[in-house]
Amino acid sequence: MEDRHLATLLISCPDRRGLVAALAQVLSGHGANILDSDQHTDRNVGQFFQRIVFDTSDLTTDAHTLRSAINEVAERFGMTHRLVLASAPKKRMALFVSKYEHCLYDLLLRHQAGELNCEIPLIISNHSDLRRVAEQFGIAFFEFPKTKETKAEVEAQELRLLDENQVDVVVLARYMQILSSEFVSAFPGSVINIHHSFLPAFIGGKPYHQAHNRGVKLIGATAHYATAELDEGPIIEQDVVRVSHRDDVADLVRKGRDLEKIVLARAVRCHLDDRVLRYANKTVVFE
Amino acid sequence: MEDRHLATLLISCPDRRGLVAALAQVLSGHGANILDSDQHTDRNVGQFFQRIVFDTSDLTTDAHTLRSAINEVAERFGMTHRLVLASAPKKRMALFVSKYEHCLYDLLLRHQAGELNCEIPLIISNHSDLRRVAEQFGIAFFEFPKTKETKAEVEAQELRLLDENQVDVVVLARYMQILSSEFVSAFPGSVINIHHSFLPAFIGGKPYHQAHNRGVKLIGATAHYATAELDEGPIIEQDVVRVSHRDDVADLVRKGRDLEKIVLARAVRCHLDDRVLRYANKTVVFE
Amino acid sequence: MEDRHLATLLISCPDRRGLVAALAQVLSGHGANILDSDQHTDRNVGQFFQRIVFDTSDLTTDAHTLRSAINEVAERFGMTHRLVLASAPKKRMALFVSKYEHCLYDLLLRHQAGELNCEIPLIISNHSDLRRVAEQFGIAFFEFPKTKETKAEVEAQELRLLDENQVDVVVLARYMQILSSEFVSAFPGSVINIHHSFLPAFIGGKPYHQAHNRGVKLIGATAHYATAELDEGPIIEQDVVRVSHRDDVADLVRKGRDLEKIVLARAVRCHLDDRVLRYANKTVVFE
Amino acid sequence: MEDRHLATLLISCPDRRGLVAALAQVLSGHGANILDSDQHTDRNVGQFFQRIVFDTSDLTTDAHTLRSAINEVAERFGMTHRLVLASAPKKRMALFVSKYEHCLYDLLLRHQAGELNCEIPLIISNHSDLRRVAEQFGIAFFEFPKTKETKAEVEAQELRLLDENQVDVVVLARYMQILSSEFVSAFPGSVINIHHSFLPAFIGGKPYHQAHNRGVKLIGATAHYATAELDEGPIIEQDVVRVSHRDDVADLVRKGRDLEKIVLARAVRCHLDDRVLRYANKTVVFE
Repeated sequence: MEDRHLATLLISCPDRRGLVAALAQVLSGHGANILDSDQHTDRNVGQFFQRIVFDTSDLTTDAHTLRSAINEVAERFGMTHRLVLASAPKKRMALFVSKYEHCLYDLLLRHQAGELNCEIPLIISNHSDLRRVAEQFGIAFFEFPKTKETKAEVEAQELRLLDENQVDVVVLARYMQILSSEFVSAFPGSVINIHHSFLPAFIGGKPYHQAHNRGVKLIGATAHYATAELDEGPIIEQDVVRVSHRDDVADLVRKGRDLEKIVLARAVRCHLDDRVLRYANKTVVFE
Repeated sequence: MEDRHLATLLISCPDRRGLVAALAQVLSGHGANILDSDQHTDRNVGQFFQRIVFDTSDLTTDAHTLRSAINEVAERFGMTHRLVLASAPKKRMALFVSKYEHCLYDLLLRHQAGELNCEIPLIISNHSDLRRVAEQFGIAFFEFPKTKETKAEVEAQELRLLDENQVDVVVLARYMQILSSEFVSAFPGSVINIHHSFLPAFIGGKPYHQAHNRGVKLIGATAHYATAELDEGPIIEQDVVRVSHRDDVADLVRKGRDLEKIVLARAVRCHLDDRVLRYANKTVVFE
Repeated sequence: MEDRHLATLLISCPDRRGLVAALAQVLSGHGANILDSDQHTDRNVGQFFQRIVFDTSDLTTDAHTLRSAINEVAERFGMTHRLVLASAPKKRMALFVSKYEHCLYDLLLRHQAGELNCEIPLIISNHSDLRRVAEQFGIAFFEFPKTKETKAEVEAQELRLLDENQVDVVVLARYMQILSSEFVSAFPGSVINIHHSFLPAFIGGKPYHQAHNRGVKLIGATAHYATAELDEGPIIEQDVVRVSHRDDVADLVRKGRDLEKIVLARAVRCHLDDRVLRYANKTVVFE
Repeated sequence: MEDRHLATLLISCPDRRGLVAALAQVLSGHGANILDSDQHTDRNVGQFFQRIVFDTSDLTTDAHTLRSAINEVAERFGMTHRLVLASAPKKRMALFVSKYEHCLYDLLLRHQAGELNCEIPLIISNHSDLRRVAEQFGIAFFEFPKTKETKAEVEAQELRLLDENQVDVVVLARYMQILSSEFVSAFPGSVINIHHSFLPAFIGGKPYHQAHNRGVKLIGATAHYATAELDEGPIIEQDVVRVSHRDDVADLVRKGRDLEKIVLARAVRCHLDDRVLRYANKTVVFE
């Protein structure tokens, strides 16, 4: 079986009996072989989530017919669903950066190593500092300086550029600007941010300074979907590292860099692999 | 929905197409509502594993008919399977201990707190030291001193006692004796041991001393199924804790106690909840 | 060398040159042998901290003379200091509990195992539930129910009782009552609380519910010195454990129990071993 | 105080009374101000270790006189010691690589970010693959293919090259060749290797395959000083990451890359900062 025959189906709907069997049956009935299936029911809110990976190499129908049949089941059960065939073009990811290079380098190197299943058509920055990194990796770099006055106009330009490049996912890789809610809503559920604290602790600016002042014994990083409210979006991934009284703010920044890279990369990878479902300002992240 | 209507089905078989749909269909067809399903395919060896939790409160048939239908599918696909109804009696767990009390106390307190879904009819030891703990918790305590000469005979007595008490699971909670392969094979896949190292490092005696001599920077603990070969059985759970040059052997022992308790408790809990499947000297542990 | 000849000296003062040499010299000059010394300078605030452990078995003077000499150096450099001789009586620790038993059991078992260098003369609770645990360990148990109206009066009774028992340290082992600032200030720097979140996230009530609502991917526990402001005191120790969308509030509570126990025990142990120095709402915790 | 006035003194000797005071006194007597001091005594073997950082900006003598005075104390107490003035040239580090780029990129980026206090005059490889990375960072790259027959001769060439470049530290950043004991002994205590397992588990080749076969639940990485015996040298740093039955060997390799980078970087940083002391095939790593 080759990877180009893989398909992934993501489902979210109110929990109802017979759901799982109905889906298994429609897939099996069309010759799809279920390779992996993971599901979750949030009993508090009565919501059902499932991720199914199946092999389409022995389909008894064509992909179009299968899609129609899945749509029919989805409608019957009131499902929100997404079917991604491995033959579909890869997701296209834009990286937004400012002056810090560590997350940018990390994502580009992982992409180069084949860890991230996407294209990276462009990098956007409000500064010119990281143009050299973009050039090292042969990726287009666009500089869009912003001021309070020009922000709306510049964001409109950025959106046009993203649209021209058919971008699906925007990753804010330590982008030190707050995007407007208009911008964010142009990519619903597809703008990923890394915040350098263990959210909801230390929301807003200078979280390492805040952490140092509070005297915490661990610092964290949080990757989340950006929403209109700063640092309040659904959390995809978090991790922490131990610090002590010996660590001053510069040490927290240094230790935090490693955290930020790893946490953002894990979140991006999960998103690109269609492992994340959003609901109620939370995420289901299937392993 | 009450918990007494829950049922768990564990499956292991060679991977074949149609498996998942066939099971989903037989359950759905009898009115069972699948609440949770987790599966795994080891593509290297072509083996399929699944754990399904379903609600039986609206079965359109009785449990006996459902069981027969499942057996039929199982036979068709060459499945090894186990169906556990929540109405079935709880598993019965025997604890084997020597002189260390920390794992014993930990398991008894978790049991008391409702974390472990089992009965604990008895505690067996080769020493009398922990009788007082058994008494605190009102559990029968049996002392079986062992020598090289009496080992075979004493083990036979222990097996009779376990049999009389209808014991399903034996947990070696820092039991400082090696059980014979005859003993272990009387409880296939149901003797859980805690070894105080990160296996396969530091097999055998005095692993904290070995770790201290080697100068490691982390120490570990490993819960595994006991097999005929010492410390070689399938690993269920492992964890580590950081140590430094400041820690002497006594510190490793102290830090290790916390690890041993937590690792053993997690493994026992997974086993009792029918989350563990064995194959090829490994385990699949469904979350 | 026996442990009863050990002495610990804790120092905090504005950083000045010659400090370290002056102390080393006065100790050496009296025949004290420095076994362990750890120090820290917070350059932002210009504050110096040191912990020295030394052997007094070959003192050329008596302890009183040594103490005077240390006092003299301390005065010269404006030091706050504390000298603890191993021959001094052990610290006396009171445990405050409500209905949750896990932290209580954990501390009592560690005390029994020799991990905590203290006496535990009494347990105080606002409920009767845990009297049976106190009895198991042969420790006096006092029940002080509290209402808003009686709080001040009851706290006064509690303080008298603590005074009669010469208590040095108060540990709130999941005590579900807020102590008044009067009470806390009666034990300056010696009331240790465990809060079941990663502070400063989820301050106040029901932190596991808050964490579940926010959809975090890690939960934490924080041991800190209680101050007049709820959950704002200097942090001694923190740790986290991974959770996922599968974990409901009950799972967070269960996973959190293990965290709370370990984090509280580490903090208590550090405090009892005179490893913690407070300044600027932070702690220096020497290893 | 500027960093160029900092000095670091590392000491190892049999434990004797008066050591600490003698050193503090000689430093203080020459106008050195001790900023940080960390020490350790291994009571099992009676060995003492200390790391002192002091400020030389107000020395009452010159550095030469201070050095002589320290030498005198060192001789008196039988100390092995090393005095590093911040004004001394930076350590010179050579990187040995094969085909894997992740550790190489990681060290070069950290160096670029100012995390590693050293010069990197050259990169040596037995393959040409990573020449492009060396060029990106403007570092000389030397390719030395090796066969069993040419190994001795090629190593001699490498040693000459290292000597010409005044290299102090050799880091094997996933160098897939075993160095001869002659080579290793040319840099006593200064060849750092990263092994992709939690040593002493899975010594030798293909440790991720070994780990997968054994069914471990955590994988590790170990940075250690290379010695004549493969994977047996003193451990500087280790860490682990959780894996599950879902992870095949390729997943272990991917997860392991992050571990290897971080563990190696931490070890290299500690070595460059003169925080590591070796004894009895172990290390003391001062924080």
